[in-house]
Amino acid sequence: MGIIDGTGYIDRLNRMGAVIWLDGKKVEGHISDHPSFQGVVRTIASLYDLQNKDDLKEQMTFLFPDQDEPVGLSYLHPKTKDDLIRRRKMIERWARHTHGIFGRSPDYMNTVIMSFASSAAFLKGMKNCFPEHIISLYKRAMKEDLSFAHAFITPQINRSQINLGFTEEALSAKVIERNEKGIVIKGARMLATLGGFTDEVLVYTAPRIFFDPNEAFAFSIPSNTEGLKFICRESFVGGKSTFNYPLSSRYEEMDSIVVFDNVLVPWENVFFYDNLEAATDFKLQSSFHPLAYHQVIIRQIEKTEFLLGVAQMLAETINVGEYQHVQEKISEIISGYETMKSLLAKSENDAELDDWGCMRPSLVPLKVAGTIFPKLYPRFAEIVQLIGASGLVTLPTENDFASPISPYLQKCLQGTDKSAVDRVKIFRLAWDLTMSSFGTRQIQYERYFFGDPVKMASNLYQDYPKEKSLKLISDFLHLEHVIEC
Amino acid sequence: MGIIDGTGYIDRLNRMGAVIWLDGKKVEGHISDHPSFQGVVRTIASLYDLQNKDDLKEQMTFLFPDQDEPVGLSYLHPKTKDDLIRRRKMIERWARHTHGIFGRSPDYMNTVIMSFASSAAFLKGMKNCFPEHIISLYKRAMKEDLSFAHAFITPQINRSQINLGFTEEALSAKVIERNEKGIVIKGARMLATLGGFTDEVLVYTAPRIFFDPNEAFAFSIPSNTEGLKFICRESFVGGKSTFNYPLSSRYEEMDSIVVFDNVLVPWENVFFYDNLEAATDFKLQSSFHPLAYHQVIIRQIEKTEFLLGVAQMLAETINVGEYQHVQEKISEIISGYETMKSLLAKSENDAELDDWGCMRPSLVPLKVAGTIFPKLYPRFAEIVQLIGASGLVTLPTENDFASPISPYLQKCLQGTDKSAVDRVKIFRLAWDLTMSSFGTRQIQYERYFFGDPVKMASNLYQDYPKEKSLKLISDFLHLEHVIEC
Amino acid sequence: MGIIDGTGYIDRLNRMGAVIWLDGKKVEGHISDHPSFQGVVRTIASLYDLQNKDDLKEQMTFLFPDQDEPVGLSYLHPKTKDDLIRRRKMIERWARHTHGIFGRSPDYMNTVIMSFASSAAFLKGMKNCFPEHIISLYKRAMKEDLSFAHAFITPQINRSQINLGFTEEALSAKVIERNEKGIVIKGARMLATLGGFTDEVLVYTAPRIFFDPNEAFAFSIPSNTEGLKFICRESFVGGKSTFNYPLSSRYEEMDSIVVFDNVLVPWENVFFYDNLEAATDFKLQSSFHPLAYHQVIIRQIEKTEFLLGVAQMLAETINVGEYQHVQEKISEIISGYETMKSLLAKSENDAELDDWGCMRPSLVPLKVAGTIFPKLYPRFAEIVQLIGASGLVTLPTENDFASPISPYLQKCLQGTDKSAVDRVKIFRLAWDLTMSSFGTRQIQYERYFFGDPVKMASNLYQDYPKEKSLKLISDFLHLEHVIEC
Amino acid sequence: MGIIDGTGYIDRLNRMGAVIWLDGKKVEGHISDHPSFQGVVRTIASLYDLQNKDDLKEQMTFLFPDQDEPVGLSYLHPKTKDDLIRRRKMIERWARHTHGIFGRSPDYMNTVIMSFASSAAFLKGMKNCFPEHIISLYKRAMKEDLSFAHAFITPQINRSQINLGFTEEALSAKVIERNEKGIVIKGARMLATLGGFTDEVLVYTAPRIFFDPNEAFAFSIPSNTEGLKFICRESFVGGKSTFNYPLSSRYEEMDSIVVFDNVLVPWENVFFYDNLEAATDFKLQSSFHPLAYHQVIIRQIEKTEFLLGVAQMLAETINVGEYQHVQEKISEIISGYETMKSLLAKSENDAELDDWGCMRPSLVPLKVAGTIFPKLYPRFAEIVQLIGASGLVTLPTENDFASPISPYLQKCLQGTDKSAVDRVKIFRLAWDLTMSSFGTRQIQYERYFFGDPVKMASNLYQDYPKEKSLKLISDFLHLEHVIEC
Repeated sequence: MGIIDGTGYIDRLNRMGAVIWLDGKKVEGHISDHPSFQGVVRTIASLYDLQNKDDLKEQMTFLFPDQDEPVGLSYLHPKTKDDLIRRRKMIERWARHTHGIFGRSPDYMNTVIMSFASSAAFLKGMKNCFPEHIISLYKRAMKEDLSFAHAFITPQINRSQINLGFTEEALSAKVIERNEKGIVIKGARMLATLGGFTDEVLVYTAPRIFFDPNEAFAFSIPSNTEGLKFICRESFVGGKSTFNYPLSSRYEEMDSIVVFDNVLVPWENVFFYDNLEAATDFKLQSSFHPLAYHQVIIRQIEKTEFLLGVAQMLAETINVGEYQHVQEKISEIISGYETMKSLLAKSENDAELDDWGCMRPSLVPLKVAGTIFPKLYPRFAEIVQLIGASGLVTLPTENDFASPISPYLQKCLQGTDKSAVDRVKIFRLAWDLTMSSFGTRQIQYERYFFGDPVKMASNLYQDYPKEKSLKLISDFLHLEHVIEC
Repeated sequence: MGIIDGTGYIDRLNRMGAVIWLDGKKVEGHISDHPSFQGVVRTIASLYDLQNKDDLKEQMTFLFPDQDEPVGLSYLHPKTKDDLIRRRKMIERWARHTHGIFGRSPDYMNTVIMSFASSAAFLKGMKNCFPEHIISLYKRAMKEDLSFAHAFITPQINRSQINLGFTEEALSAKVIERNEKGIVIKGARMLATLGGFTDEVLVYTAPRIFFDPNEAFAFSIPSNTEGLKFICRESFVGGKSTFNYPLSSRYEEMDSIVVFDNVLVPWENVFFYDNLEAATDFKLQSSFHPLAYHQVIIRQIEKTEFLLGVAQMLAETINVGEYQHVQEKISEIISGYETMKSLLAKSENDAELDDWGCMRPSLVPLKVAGTIFPKLYPRFAEIVQLIGASGLVTLPTENDFASPISPYLQKCLQGTDKSAVDRVKIFRLAWDLTMSSFGTRQIQYERYFFGDPVKMASNLYQDYPKEKSLKLISDFLHLEHVIEC
Repeated sequence: MGIIDGTGYIDRLNRMGAVIWLDGKKVEGHISDHPSFQGVVRTIASLYDLQNKDDLKEQMTFLFPDQDEPVGLSYLHPKTKDDLIRRRKMIERWARHTHGIFGRSPDYMNTVIMSFASSAAFLKGMKNCFPEHIISLYKRAMKEDLSFAHAFITPQINRSQINLGFTEEALSAKVIERNEKGIVIKGARMLATLGGFTDEVLVYTAPRIFFDPNEAFAFSIPSNTEGLKFICRESFVGGKSTFNYPLSSRYEEMDSIVVFDNVLVPWENVFFYDNLEAATDFKLQSSFHPLAYHQVIIRQIEKTEFLLGVAQMLAETINVGEYQHVQEKISEIISGYETMKSLLAKSENDAELDDWGCMRPSLVPLKVAGTIFPKLYPRFAEIVQLIGASGLVTLPTENDFASPISPYLQKCLQGTDKSAVDRVKIFRLAWDLTMSSFGTRQIQYERYFFGDPVKMASNLYQDYPKEKSLKLISDFLHLEHVIEC
Repeated sequence: MGIIDGTGYIDRLNRMGAVIWLDGKKVEGHISDHPSFQGVVRTIASLYDLQNKDDLKEQMTFLFPDQDEPVGLSYLHPKTKDDLIRRRKMIERWARHTHGIFGRSPDYMNTVIMSFASSAAFLKGMKNCFPEHIISLYKRAMKEDLSFAHAFITPQINRSQINLGFTEEALSAKVIERNEKGIVIKGARMLATLGGFTDEVLVYTAPRIFFDPNEAFAFSIPSNTEGLKFICRESFVGGKSTFNYPLSSRYEEMDSIVVFDNVLVPWENVFFYDNLEAATDFKLQSSFHPLAYHQVIIRQIEKTEFLLGVAQMLAETINVGEYQHVQEKISEIISGYETMKSLLAKSENDAELDDWGCMRPSLVPLKVAGTIFPKLYPRFAEIVQLIGASGLVTLPTENDFASPISPYLQKCLQGTDKSAVDRVKIFRLAWDLTMSSFGTRQIQYERYFFGDPVKMASNLYQDYPKEKSLKLISDFLHLEHVIEC
């Protein structure tokens, strides 16, 4: 085997039959036919199809040593800067296909799996750690072109700093038994985007200050493992019409709560368990952060370009591009777009090999990008709203244009140099991007992609090497307290 | 006759049968039964019921001279500060009933009709003006407790400053014929909120720099006048469940495009026509602005208090109230709330009688409130999103809680000191307020309530009396150029 | 005795001879002749002169029961809303005399003394507390029209939350001895604005979390008490020329560090000592906050009006008032000005009698004003800079206009409709207000007037009654958890 | 000849004796001894000394073809990316010497002269244009290591858009005569930073919409040309003490108005005259913008690093680095610093050869940097003020520490782990950087370096290639209106 195509993905998904609940009902039959899910399934399928296209195959795949079949390029372990650039081009291509709006294209988790595998040696010899299971997952994933969801967050019950988070009952997923077959998990984890629409789900505990050792584990299991349930939030698919809902009809990824109802995780799927140190350090020390950030920032850049297009298209449609405040607003998007691209380029130019032979993009520029985008994106969405103004409120539907009242709409909804149909398409896109339930979920998604923005800023501050700057001051002022760096 | 109750309103509405189009279909049957409209109709009905409640009747109504039946108090022409305060209390009561979210409670337009009537003398003797028609509308409206929608905006086709806006064809509504019966109107006007759900629709042209005299008119006609069509935007009712959609199931007001298909407006309904000066000056010189602002600011204050409650309730639910940045964010809402209340109080304290005996609230504090609220409200919505964070994304539905998976949700979705059901209710409210299609339309609605915020700021600057401040400088510096004031 | 005039103030000051150090030198001779101090001394003197003017005497003074001589009105203990308004008008008059820029006009501390006296009963019967000393100070202050400086802050050495702040040595002022004559104080306190230019200095400890009982005291002593030293910061008087330095030549108040070198505070001057509870609660429970805020907000409103004048004068001078972004910026100042005025008015309208018969302005609107002004003022200063632009950089001096090159300047520095001299006066004022060392100290002064803005926001949040808002939500959603209020 | 050293610069400057007026007096004697100018002169001299240091000579100079003597590297015409990087390192070195605070180090204008020369061919054959004079100036400048000031701005008299700017009298500098020797200039130009402290002054007219052909010229003349006068603004040197005024005592560059009192500009110094097209296009088409931006952004990056050091040093001194809001503020500086560096790197990576063989850094990232820095820098200065807080107000002087009161200051002004002297040094630096008259002029300088920020944003918007983004939308929505790019 090797890369799959869209049909392959859909068939495997329908066969798998993960337990998915939506609006109080268990999903039955083929997921790919479900009105709330067919859009996302087809979008993923279309991504897999891209890697089979003759003119893209070389860009989208690579040959793993000693293998005959090409493998999805997001699995490529980068050993040179050229590898990094190759990865970037592949990621860009997939991101462009959905304009960066489909956050969990398979390359995201492929990258995560690859980064874990590339740093697996870190876990060697540590208690209750099985680096070899990570490697074998990586190989299996490449061979079968597996897709993954993940669940890294605990339920948001009490966010107080002084909340110890220990509970008698398993609210947050915990190991409640260890036996000869594996570990048994009970409890919930949050926000598995795409949960149930992928072959497997990767679970990794996020470190907190006060931490229950029973919550220190990581593994990947098939989505149809017994006892595993995905409870979806309400669907934000507005409807089938791509005229009315150009984005939600296609890109509604769905988020779910993952419930582990005494789920047995076989030993061969476990990366580690009962090891607080591993849980805390592996993610930090591995190439996870630089490589995952790299994928995400590339996608966000594509999205920003799309947003810039929407903003400018709106401005032209109602001819407001001459206003100084409109120019200033769109130039804000331009600045953000160019800034994100520059930070990405710098991360690649300053890439360095890590101890395990992985060419890591420089983390600081990526973290800066990851710190500013959660503020930029909501502001860009606001700019789109401010340019569209009241025009974003009264928008007719596809059916309206197919009805007897269409001629009235043709007249009063035309743009400066556009037909009413084009104008409404453009405004509905702006609305679906920033004002529909789908669009606002996107805003919240980008805002919290890497976690709490307040903590991210603190983290950037704490990790940043500040000695060189301090030394400038201490030298200039001839302080008694000399700083070395 | 006099005040009506909810049943009275609904019966009249169903009998009227205005021509309303939604999603390409003409609405048939009783509006009050239509799934997209029953919420709004019931909400309006419940407002009318309030004025019939024994304990509220005195607060909600007044006796018009020489009339036996009490009249809705929003029709009260204020002649003293006490009248203003009486008006404020009535408006507050209605606003509180829908937490300020239902923007077009009948008092808004009642106030407009009353303010026009109170200043009708301004039009006396002006060409093509019929102040007596305004007075008789006011009397009729009180007598029958009429409800009104309005359409003040032209289609947003070309917003360039140098666009003359003259078109051959009637895109924007125009007078195309004047005959013995009245004027004939053809073309469209935008954004009639509640269009089709009220007894009448008031049309008034908004002045632009380059202005077609055929567009200079004002009148009010029954919503079922022949040739009048209301084309609705897509409905933002999420569904019937008040658990899932606590706001949109009740308060979705609907906006529509009003099409005039050769509509004959009888002379007795016309306020003026073919008079650019009247169109420009009447709204500015009448008590329209101070009294309409007064109503709106009162409603926005109620809404702000509700938002403050939502923000604080979220913070308590997940126990984040200890964080300095959360405290700072909520204190922003507190500051905004207290500021709005102070500006309102000042407008009442500084009220003055106008030339026609109307006690006008002071306009400057109201304009300041109207200038800052379009920035405050989106920021407050953002604060709600920032406090709710990822918890606003994965929200189950009423059906989920009635299904076999409910026990899982009961556990993992509980709040710090709240049940999962309470927590989900609170988060769904926050979501419906700021992230559903209904919620984002509310944001856009408040942003543009009084028009383009950029122009409002310019307008505040231009109209503000700056001489006293300038004189401070000229005196202090002993400038040659002496300023008098 | 009773009110003094300017000469009386200056004579007493010169006679007193407090120990003041400036730039490494002890100030010798008459303070009123010192180049760094003559401006501030004359400004204070001119304030005292105002209360002796025939046409102002009634506005500026009152008759204390059983006294023949009029007393400065800032000493008036308000018992009715009319008293509050009378106080406001007096404070306004003094503030307008220096355009709100002179922060420590005597009414500020007079108000503090009066508020302490009006609430002195709070301390009755508490250990180590002498409410009668406060009362007698109040009477003496009125009788002799005393002026006061104050020092409420500890040195900023370690601001960490976990810093206990206990030190072996007396860094921060402490009681080091209690004997029959009084308490002996050693150590420093910060930021005595006007320190050394007033008859007395009031010292009050600000509560911290970890708190040394030796630091829990309050008293007032003459500025020339033995062992008391005022160490000035660098003077920000730009020079004598009011053309060049229209503000710093007049209003440079000076801040100083107060050093207590084994200063004996006689018992009759002590308000309390060795009482943590008194130190923490008296300021909070007394009418100090509402009445001090009231005075400050009145002054800040006058200052804002002056700033509005400067901004508008700049805009007119170089004819940029037509630009939308300039209009928006000045309308920001207008909004801030009107907001501050409304909050003040509301605090007066909602005033209530406290337990000791003092008519307290409502604290919430004042706290909101005190929370927003530290953000508004720096923004307003920035707006002045943004309107003045590069014109604020190349400004000639009074001497330039008296020199042979004056004709060149007359030409190239003229304004749109102003002479070069007027234009330069205006720009120099804008510069001195926002860009000179004097101006930036003003910005920092307003930013931190009531303390750390971050803490003020937290404090507003914590003290604000939020139950009513919460109940709106709990009622609307029918939560299990019912909220009462 | 070739590079000069500090002594060479000072000697030439003192010999030259340009006509400089300060505070109504003509400067007499050696400029290098003048208390207001000795700091800036020594700083420039120290820069020239750097290029003579053995270990830096290679980095700071290059050999111009067919010349024996090394030439200052800022004159290097970049033909490859390596040349650009070589330029960057040289510019960095000089900028670091003054921490980016000295805005007009000689490399700025050297770069301008070189960029004009590299594009001189553009003017070939155009009427009244003398490209050969630019080339010969470039060669002379290199040979003699000349320094330049420049004056590009017209007096700010009337900024209205509809002000035609034509005046009878020569307010703005104009050609009033053309004769056999050259052109005669009369009138003023603004903001010649360093005016009078350089060998020559370059004058170039900035295009406006309505433009007098008599104002369309460019030339360079010696600073001591007859009739040329530099009228300085007030000096912002706080004093001689580097303890008190660490920055202004060294880096006060001075700005002046340049008056042309019938100044004859010999033909060989004229680049062009009476040619509106040349005046408008040459600056735009030449490599001026990319290369000047390149120099400026490099300097601003060094300055940002210094500012980061100051902010962090303050935070450590009073131990506030643990506060989340302090971390967020400093992380803002970090993000800005990394963003500026990334944009610079991208401009170099994407550099391309122009038509005349010059390797131009990519302009878009540089323009973005130039658009955001005017907002970043004032914000960073504000952050420094917010961290220093009240500690920035009460700062003693060098003399205080040398006086009998020093022991008191030693105690109460110490930092968490720093002596009082170190702490005061650090706070005085923060003050001089952001709050002294010198510091605020720096803020205004960075804000307006490239012109009006509002216009810069508009300009970025207008010049930016938006077609690619628009096409994304038109393709996605299948618009009738197809966009090609």
